[in-house]
Amino acid sequence: MLTPKEAADFLRAHDGYLILTHKSPDGDTLGCAGALCRMLRGLGKRAALLRNAEVTQTYAPYVDGLWAPDDYAAETVVSVDIASENLFPKNAEAYAGRVDLSIDHHPGNSNFARLNCVYPERAACGEILCEIAEELGMLNAETALPLYVAVSTDTGCFVYSNVTANTHRVAAKLFETGIDYRPVNKRLFRTKTKKRLALEGHLLSELEFFDGGRIVVVQLPLALQRELGVTEEDMDDLAALGGQVEGTDCSITMKERANGEWKISLRTGPRVNATQVCARFGGGGHRAASGCTLRDMTQEDVKRALVEACIEVAGDA
Amino acid sequence: MLTPKEAADFLRAHDGYLILTHKSPDGDTLGCAGALCRMLRGLGKRAALLRNAEVTQTYAPYVDGLWAPDDYAAETVVSVDIASENLFPKNAEAYAGRVDLSIDHHPGNSNFARLNCVYPERAACGEILCEIAEELGMLNAETALPLYVAVSTDTGCFVYSNVTANTHRVAAKLFETGIDYRPVNKRLFRTKTKKRLALEGHLLSELEFFDGGRIVVVQLPLALQRELGVTEEDMDDLAALGGQVEGTDCSITMKERANGEWKISLRTGPRVNATQVCARFGGGGHRAASGCTLRDMTQEDVKRALVEACIEVAGDA
Repeated sequence: MLTPKEAADFLRAHDGYLILTHKSPDGDTLGCAGALCRMLRGLGKRAALLRNAEVTQTYAPYVDGLWAPDDYAAETVVSVDIASENLFPKNAEAYAGRVDLSIDHHPGNSNFARLNCVYPERAACGEILCEIAEELGMLNAETALPLYVAVSTDTGCFVYSNVTANTHRVAAKLFETGIDYRPVNKRLFRTKTKKRLALEGHLLSELEFFDGGRIVVVQLPLALQRELGVTEEDMDDLAALGGQVEGTDCSITMKERANGEWKISLRTGPRVNATQVCARFGGGGHRAASGCTLRDMTQEDVKRALVEACIEVAGDA
Repeated sequence: MLTPKEAADFLRAHDGYLILTHKSPDGDTLGCAGALCRMLRGLGKRAALLRNAEVTQTYAPYVDGLWAPDDYAAETVVSVDIASENLFPKNAEAYAGRVDLSIDHHPGNSNFARLNCVYPERAACGEILCEIAEELGMLNAETALPLYVAVSTDTGCFVYSNVTANTHRVAAKLFETGIDYRPVNKRLFRTKTKKRLALEGHLLSELEFFDGGRIVVVQLPLALQRELGVTEEDMDDLAALGGQVEGTDCSITMKERANGEWKISLRTGPRVNATQVCARFGGGGHRAASGCTLRDMTQEDVKRALVEACIEVAGDA
């Protein structure tokens, strides 16, 4: 295990960096990659990000101009916010077994890299990168902005249970570089498209409750998605919607895919182990947040199967 | 103007404290009052809060057991988060002209008190109270929890534009006392009643747009409030709802009161000075968040007057 200082020493000693981000890239992996690349270039190194085909418009501005050209000669491979090689995007699979340094905060990190700088107590990988930036003398407005994106997105803007004193200390340091965090907050946490708001309005009026009100179900059949004309981005992170209903501790979000499959996201309180529920349907995840996919079933049957599984798993506990 | 250190010296030198909070009390005024009372009692002083009839269930736990009995002998009167004597609750009007120390962060503070410790650059009055607590050696888990309520509520949990490096530094210090902020965040920022969600669902489907989509209006006539059976608490902080619509930078929330008055909350981006708009109707507040009350006008006229004022103030800038 490398400390942030040791990771900084390693980064100062090498060159020709290729930086890997995980599939379905979020603000933490992209913010960290953007910041790390700028730090290394600031030190006069060659550095670039391996292209990630799944980057959304939300995060594209923070990694703009940093992608490696096709003929990039990688000497040193660093991954950020990646827990295991299973989470590599397709075009990163060639680097399996060849990562020199992994910087990450996932408790389940598989230590797949030659050197690992992994701190599971950090809410965001961005907190570790902030320490590394300080060690490198590279904490400035250019690196602090993507790091703020990393830290704020992985904590829901400092509201999730993973926030610690260190998270706020890091945010204070990032602000001290003079960054303007306001457009970031406005864009990432305080802006919703009219379609998204219409969708939320509809879903909130159609919530269904079971098990004495403790289980809430949010349903997005294809017909509704088409009626409202919503995109995948409009439906991003909808699992949080049901979880906020007072008195519930079990929120099932059912999204129908174009092929008729139902993608299920389950969010639970301490009473129900979400991993156990989703494992019954071949899925998995964390204790409080898991997912699975159900096939060849009607909407009613999917709903019934999941509600029953939640009740049974709660009963077994 | 008193510094936090001078305010701490004053507090150490006196006794028999009565602490005033503002009408329609929020997390900042109540959190500050709760923390200040506990600090003073911790120093062996007599201290209590003047009863505030409008305290909601949301914030009641943070001021529980601190209310002054009817025969309380006040020697020293301190107000927290109160910008002017107009904002005193009814039962505090007897203390107009008799406040010894005002601790506040509103730019428009009228300096109504004998001594004023006012820092408009602070996002929450709780930030100033945190400095005072440190000066008094009274920053501990008991005082830090209500201060966290103060700072987090006035910043929407660190998402609003008023957040500064100091806000995050204060949050880190509060966390370091060992408080458990998780139930606070869950309760204040991640839980909504079923009625609240139904209300939001309804309002989101009924948004009205003006000025090429830059102004959004959210309307809560009494008839709607009665139809949905919502309480004052269900309608708390609805001003944030309209402000999140993509492409808008001016959100007007109109709430009809039982007496037919319209309570207006205005949230604006840099283009429109909310204070200037609300000042036209005898109200005030901050540049990005102000309020006012309109009387003897129809819903349509209230809406038109406010939309026009926003357009004119933007034009004058």
